[in-house]
Amino acid sequence: MSERLSEIETELRIGEVAVELPSQADAGVFFIGTILTPWRTRRDCPKRGSFDGPVCSIVVDDRWQAALTDIAAYRRIQVLYWMHRARRDLVFQTPFGKATTGTFALRSPVRPNPIASSIVELVAVAGATLRVRGLDCVDGTPLLDLKPDYPIASSKD
Amino acid sequence: MSERLSEIETELRIGEVAVELPSQADAGVFFIGTILTPWRTRRDCPKRGSFDGPVCSIVVDDRWQAALTDIAAYRRIQVLYWMHRARRDLVFQTPFGKATTGTFALRSPVRPNPIASSIVELVAVAGATLRVRGLDCVDGTPLLDLKPDYPIASSKD
Repeated sequence: MSERLSEIETELRIGEVAVELPSQADAGVFFIGTILTPWRTRRDCPKRGSFDGPVCSIVVDDRWQAALTDIAAYRRIQVLYWMHRARRDLVFQTPFGKATTGTFALRSPVRPNPIASSIVELVAVAGATLRVRGLDCVDGTPLLDLKPDYPIASSKD
Repeated sequence: MSERLSEIETELRIGEVAVELPSQADAGVFFIGTILTPWRTRRDCPKRGSFDGPVCSIVVDDRWQAALTDIAAYRRIQVLYWMHRARRDLVFQTPFGKATTGTFALRSPVRPNPIASSIVELVAVAGATLRVRGLDCVDGTPLLDLKPDYPIASSKD
């Protein structure tokens, strides 16, 4: 844990503004699996996932494996994951080489709830492991959710 | 709170399977605002949001208002919210009138982490309030995140 915390950047760049975080969380998330990628640090990660990128693995915990039933029917899957190495308190950010901008006008990992959403192409499913293309996260990232992808808006089907 | 809990369905339909939830959460989320819609109960909600649907409001808490800076430059926004009335322990579900399916092959609110993702059209921003089209959630739903939308994959721009 200390190793991970030490990777969280705490210095502010020009224009960046931090706020005090709430004293407690409003709800809890479960890490339901782990994402395995070729990228060991955030610096190694591609800026944006690509369907031409390497095949990565999503390993779902035993508890939730049955919930993968029928997922192979979908070619594109939405993956939600927890960007566990990102600070959460910035309202203004200055991305490297860019102008200062509000956090909600960026897809940066730094946000009050560090939840990432990627659309991936499902290559194969074997047991509790999905093989996918399109991810851009660091190796060992905790998984939050998998959903069939729909092109626009949401659906409760 | 008791009113809300009483709305969570606890009966299993044919084919549905529940698992024991982990004894504790792995991380905490902050509710950063509230979504205001015309739908007072889950039954009233449309099955799927539409850009032709009614204009709804997203009210961001004061603490995070500055993070909205520059969001008006985007026409489409990804909204993440917490489906606070959904149970979290089903691995197999039987949607009304349909076959039993694994939870990750559905976009149902019932999932280990009840995080919904919708793409909405941004109509206006005034102070801490966004007016948007494309939502389908119940009035009072807690907001988790706002991001500029990208059509495929993710981005850390």
